[in-house]
Amino acid sequence: MAKSLPVSPLAPKNFPDLPEVSGVTFATAAAGVRYQGRDDVMLALLAPGTSVAGVFTRSATRSAPVLDCQAKLGGASDAGAAILVNSGNSNAFTGHYGQTSVSELTQAVSQITGCPQERVFTASTGVIGEPLPHDRIVAKLGDLNADLASDAIDKAARAIMTTDTFAKGASRQLSVGGKTVSIAGIAKGSGMIAPDMATMLVYIFTDGAIPHDQLQGLVSKHSDSTFNCITVDSDTSTSDSLMVCATGASGVDVSGNEGFSAALHEVMLDLAHQVVRDGEGATKFVEIRVTGAANDTDAKTHGLSIANSPLVKTAIAGEDPNWGRVVMAIGKSGAAADRDLLSIWFGDLLVAENGWVSPDYSESDAATYMKQQDLVIHVNLGLGEGRATVWTCDLTHGYISINADYRS
Amino acid sequence: MAKSLPVSPLAPKNFPDLPEVSGVTFATAAAGVRYQGRDDVMLALLAPGTSVAGVFTRSATRSAPVLDCQAKLGGASDAGAAILVNSGNSNAFTGHYGQTSVSELTQAVSQITGCPQERVFTASTGVIGEPLPHDRIVAKLGDLNADLASDAIDKAARAIMTTDTFAKGASRQLSVGGKTVSIAGIAKGSGMIAPDMATMLVYIFTDGAIPHDQLQGLVSKHSDSTFNCITVDSDTSTSDSLMVCATGASGVDVSGNEGFSAALHEVMLDLAHQVVRDGEGATKFVEIRVTGAANDTDAKTHGLSIANSPLVKTAIAGEDPNWGRVVMAIGKSGAAADRDLLSIWFGDLLVAENGWVSPDYSESDAATYMKQQDLVIHVNLGLGEGRATVWTCDLTHGYISINADYRS
Repeated sequence: MAKSLPVSPLAPKNFPDLPEVSGVTFATAAAGVRYQGRDDVMLALLAPGTSVAGVFTRSATRSAPVLDCQAKLGGASDAGAAILVNSGNSNAFTGHYGQTSVSELTQAVSQITGCPQERVFTASTGVIGEPLPHDRIVAKLGDLNADLASDAIDKAARAIMTTDTFAKGASRQLSVGGKTVSIAGIAKGSGMIAPDMATMLVYIFTDGAIPHDQLQGLVSKHSDSTFNCITVDSDTSTSDSLMVCATGASGVDVSGNEGFSAALHEVMLDLAHQVVRDGEGATKFVEIRVTGAANDTDAKTHGLSIANSPLVKTAIAGEDPNWGRVVMAIGKSGAAADRDLLSIWFGDLLVAENGWVSPDYSESDAATYMKQQDLVIHVNLGLGEGRATVWTCDLTHGYISINADYRS
Repeated sequence: MAKSLPVSPLAPKNFPDLPEVSGVTFATAAAGVRYQGRDDVMLALLAPGTSVAGVFTRSATRSAPVLDCQAKLGGASDAGAAILVNSGNSNAFTGHYGQTSVSELTQAVSQITGCPQERVFTASTGVIGEPLPHDRIVAKLGDLNADLASDAIDKAARAIMTTDTFAKGASRQLSVGGKTVSIAGIAKGSGMIAPDMATMLVYIFTDGAIPHDQLQGLVSKHSDSTFNCITVDSDTSTSDSLMVCATGASGVDVSGNEGFSAALHEVMLDLAHQVVRDGEGATKFVEIRVTGAANDTDAKTHGLSIANSPLVKTAIAGEDPNWGRVVMAIGKSGAAADRDLLSIWFGDLLVAENGWVSPDYSESDAATYMKQQDLVIHVNLGLGEGRATVWTCDLTHGYISINADYRS
């Protein structure tokens, strides 16, 4: 049973008002998979003609539902689609029983909704290594199908939470040829209470019309600069899944539309930031901006090395402008760096340059800056044009408490 | 000023009795580089004919003394050698001033000891980004030279400590052709108090005779299975240095001697383990044993992925037999793994196999095992013959306190 945690100090004030997206309906139910007294299953039904794109964890020990989704994601289809997600049990490392559960669930959803089984996608998040009691979920499918409604995405956001301290949603609307296209998404992450594992699930819906291949291209590209640029503790889930569904129900073709691509990117980045803001024990939201690297890949390597460094993250927790640890993280990353060419800023404060502390550096100004809740650390390698931005949170006693102490 | 920390619960009971090693003498002094009321400089003088081998950090932002040592390590020499180490200031990221300090120090040591400047090696450990007040050290060189003694290695071990909670030493003696060869070494690590950085320094001395190239080969090879197999927090120092000096003063040729190689390996492993046992906040010493990997490189990748995982390390701190997090760490490592072929043991307890929890697994037995101070986690990938063993400690509130809280 998940322990109730205080809401992250970095949480948005409210769950946002998400627009209804034509062509998709939602329902939630309390199946009692593990949690009691709350909804723990959500069903989303997508209209015929929906394009579905996805990005999944690269873990070699990924879960049965992830393997099933990846196998199904191949091509476009004129059929609709369904997404079934449960919280409380991740159906990961459950041997061949895991596949059986996925088959049972997707078959039952297909029978009840009329959606072909090869277009039914599932995800599970929560405890690992325990068989998923899929019968409890199957027993609720009739109710779920009957309850499907276009205005229930907020309930869906709550039903997929595990140890999240707040529900995560984001949306954008854009006007194309006088018609409105809506994009709305939900996410869960990054709570981990043993024997649970970090799981990030993201579902984004739009009524724009776009072929599957184009949508997949956008999603893959935007993932690299959003969800693949965040880190809480460098650990990778066996269940991470991101799916984007375009129903086309607005009647607006968004193929090749730059505005749509930008809006989708914004929704993905917004949700990615919310996952970091719910990082376990987080008290600071930190943007690591790397410029001047030999290339973009090197910039991201340096950025993630800084963002994953326990010494950098504990310094931030301690509101300590410890630029020496940033130097250390750059040095160890393996990407190209020249000690004497790099510059480091905390916010607008130039901290280090020319292989040494900046002559203008004021420790007290920097210490004042570090008291802010949202921080920017900027590193310029002085080598080339490569750049990347990654986001992380600090490493605090809260992280240790959540992941070590609950058992005592 | 380093804060005084309680001695690690994993510390050995006493500093060991180290044998004198013919051909090397030590002296220490209080130069007041940063710390007051304690020795903070050590000088070791090696007899003519000494072979010197070394391994240094691969950090791209490594310190001036490291760069100087690397440049000097090239070939054999009939001259003696000297090693000068200070604590309290790492002379890292100090711009061109850093090289000046190294030159001043090595020149002064050469003048006073008669050892050629190109055979004077230095190391500095402590605060970074501040100019090293090398004049204070130079002022003590006369005293140091006068005090050199063969029985002062224990003082040397203490003089190089920064935030270590205990001094680290290890030795072995072996008999070759009826004569005794001694190996004795000291190490410091892994305290990091801002703005200090993790720095591991290791100095090992032997009176065996062995040419430089052979000694370097042994040291490089043994490093891979000792110091390169330990991790406290995945952060890499800008100053890490390991030097091994063979004076030959025993008159015993240990070239190609397997017993000598094995004894040197034991000393290196002993010191490496002591560094982990002094890991910040550590309450558990953990051996991660990986077998059955596709190859040795993959085995080490998996081992370090497990050893560096904050979720694994916090589970261990919580005495939680959370094998799911071990599965996660294997999955994310990037090395080859098959979920359904891997097996996991905690100590002798088979925890998981065939892609699922073992049918014989008892949560309560595993929880009892996790209460031990020294733990072994064994993973068999079931893929091949590759194997590796790495060592780490747990991640506790103590780590956060040391690295984040001291400032408040």
